[in-house]
Amino acid sequence: MKIALITIGTELLNGARTDTNAAWMGQKVISAGGVIEWHMTVSDDKEAIVNALDAVPQSIHTVLCTGGLGPTHDDITPTVLYDYFDAKPEFDKSYWTLLTEKFAARGRTIPESNRNQAMKPDKGETIPNPVGSARGLHFTNNHYDCFAMPGVPAEMKAMMSGTILPWVASKSKVKHHISVMRTTGIMESALYEKIDSIIKNYPKVQVAFLPRFTGVDLRISSNDEADFKDLIDQISPAINKYHFGGDGVGLEDAVGDLLIQRNKTIATAESCTGGLIGDRFTNVSGSSAYYKGGIVAYSNDVKENILGVKKETLRFFGAVSEETALEMAKGVRQKLKTDIGISTTGIAGPTGGTGEKPVGLIYVGLSFDGGEKAYKFTFTPSRITNKLMTSQAALNITRLFLLNES
Amino acid sequence: MKIALITIGTELLNGARTDTNAAWMGQKVISAGGVIEWHMTVSDDKEAIVNALDAVPQSIHTVLCTGGLGPTHDDITPTVLYDYFDAKPEFDKSYWTLLTEKFAARGRTIPESNRNQAMKPDKGETIPNPVGSARGLHFTNNHYDCFAMPGVPAEMKAMMSGTILPWVASKSKVKHHISVMRTTGIMESALYEKIDSIIKNYPKVQVAFLPRFTGVDLRISSNDEADFKDLIDQISPAINKYHFGGDGVGLEDAVGDLLIQRNKTIATAESCTGGLIGDRFTNVSGSSAYYKGGIVAYSNDVKENILGVKKETLRFFGAVSEETALEMAKGVRQKLKTDIGISTTGIAGPTGGTGEKPVGLIYVGLSFDGGEKAYKFTFTPSRITNKLMTSQAALNITRLFLLNES
Repeated sequence: MKIALITIGTELLNGARTDTNAAWMGQKVISAGGVIEWHMTVSDDKEAIVNALDAVPQSIHTVLCTGGLGPTHDDITPTVLYDYFDAKPEFDKSYWTLLTEKFAARGRTIPESNRNQAMKPDKGETIPNPVGSARGLHFTNNHYDCFAMPGVPAEMKAMMSGTILPWVASKSKVKHHISVMRTTGIMESALYEKIDSIIKNYPKVQVAFLPRFTGVDLRISSNDEADFKDLIDQISPAINKYHFGGDGVGLEDAVGDLLIQRNKTIATAESCTGGLIGDRFTNVSGSSAYYKGGIVAYSNDVKENILGVKKETLRFFGAVSEETALEMAKGVRQKLKTDIGISTTGIAGPTGGTGEKPVGLIYVGLSFDGGEKAYKFTFTPSRITNKLMTSQAALNITRLFLLNES
Repeated sequence: MKIALITIGTELLNGARTDTNAAWMGQKVISAGGVIEWHMTVSDDKEAIVNALDAVPQSIHTVLCTGGLGPTHDDITPTVLYDYFDAKPEFDKSYWTLLTEKFAARGRTIPESNRNQAMKPDKGETIPNPVGSARGLHFTNNHYDCFAMPGVPAEMKAMMSGTILPWVASKSKVKHHISVMRTTGIMESALYEKIDSIIKNYPKVQVAFLPRFTGVDLRISSNDEADFKDLIDQISPAINKYHFGGDGVGLEDAVGDLLIQRNKTIATAESCTGGLIGDRFTNVSGSSAYYKGGIVAYSNDVKENILGVKKETLRFFGAVSEETALEMAKGVRQKLKTDIGISTTGIAGPTGGTGEKPVGLIYVGLSFDGGEKAYKFTFTPSRITNKLMTSQAALNITRLFLLNES
């Protein structure tokens, strides 16, 4: 089922608020067999709302609206919709009584400004609101069914789950299959080249590439269950090295699972990432089972006095060097008595680069029972991006190390 | 200047990605004298993009597009735009050479699929991309100027700041004044009560309250420069204790500035925040001047053996206690030889809470030349939110301590 979405709110256009509703709704309707094909954002303005309602393509027969149902003066959505669908508001005495009682139960008198929330259309329906006082509205004309909900995320979600998604599911014929494969350590273009020839054989399956600085997500979707499963089976071995998890799984979750499976503990020695890897490890509930802690060795003093990096190493090779990364990883592993030590040192930028050691030059060190390894990267001019990419590289090095351990 | 925004990306409609670009752009164009009046989100589909380009209202003469400029098969924006604006792509040999060299500098061979990023229009212009390889496009027809940018936020922002916002500012006639005052340590309702009576005297100035878990931003805007300045002058003393900076300033920036002014150094001892405070300190360029590093003491072993928290303290009071927080802060200050030590310990959740020590119970410790202090908080059931709120509380405690130091 094709669906149009109209989000109403001046605060969305002027950037005072980020629209998080649209993505939530876009995901949810898919599982109910729908798909949002058209989306307009308009201000709290009669003409703008009417223009959007007029502009819905003829191929679409379901319209969802959010926003502008509250009690304040700029909430004009109901007025516009009653007019547009040629309906009259009637005072709903039983709902007004219910609202009055709700307020009374909290020791308050209901403000007269809430009176408009007790109106219901003579032609059309109201949508129950399990978590607030403004009910939704459902109108029909000879083009589409239109559902209007508040913009408050909790109220919109309650109406979607309680009324609209079941309605979409009851009307839609198809069952949609969807899966996300998250990858890291490979660029979008290289990933594309690896699986392009496979994707081409499955025209009924859609594959979207979603690149981030930390990796590329593949979003695979189809109405054809057999092709959907086949494509995933074909792709999987080709991207095995890079594929670390599905929807909502962070690389820190995947590494955490491997550490538990392999019964290993880990510690971090962070210079250029400043604590970000520890932060990511500890975002995972239960991480205390394998993550013991770390040293943020931002100054050379800390590298030398706490991690035990040799004064000569720092003097001859510098803090940003393979040698320092190796000694940091080894030092933290010994100091914190863990199975694995992982370290980072680099020029995060934007300043501090030299001809020999430019901004973005990063070393990651890995220490384990049996030796040390160092890895060199050249990332970007951006400090925050360098930190993020370095943390991802360090986690991925740990992941690949654990996968090769038997 | 009225502006239309077309965001292109199937992943925005199906909810695989939340559109954070629109709000950022909506805010930024206002300072340049523009306002987004019309916004459509469309899929990576030729017909959908063309329909949106056709649907731009006649009253609008500037169109911004984001998304679909990457190298993969679903990035069709350039193809559609060349066609729509009747332009031909020409191979830009000098840019291809530049791209090839960029890849080579990172030790990689450029994939052939990047070749389309080296095209430029015969009629129209390219927009420089300071942070990525896909350049933007600028076309003109007899209705509007159309600027196309990548959907990757960092690349879009760089093009907006470098090329498009200056263009908007040069073309727009009104001057809009806008200022953000960031606060922390006070709830929205309490902040509102503090300044409500002042705001009421300035009907020509708009004040929006934007609450986050880490504080409330005030967004003040007006076309009336005198009233705009007056209101800010009136509000400032009333919120001085909470107000740490303006737009784009993080609390870690404000604390960093104070540490430099006071000529103090700091170290972190993090348990429940796991490295997040160190990560935030080191997000600031130049932070090595005052941030020496820290200990992520996630396990009790690290608290005891590296930070020197007494075995009896851990046994009698527990790791989550005022006493442990105090010893952690003192320990890291002594170990890293800094002026200030700041520590965190708490039950981040969602599991691990008890009747006596529920999820969200957090202690922050502060150690300085002259003593130690501990602060107790009770935050939320959410792990990530608890970590974030704890890092904010620790930074704010440091800020208030430095403000009282003379």
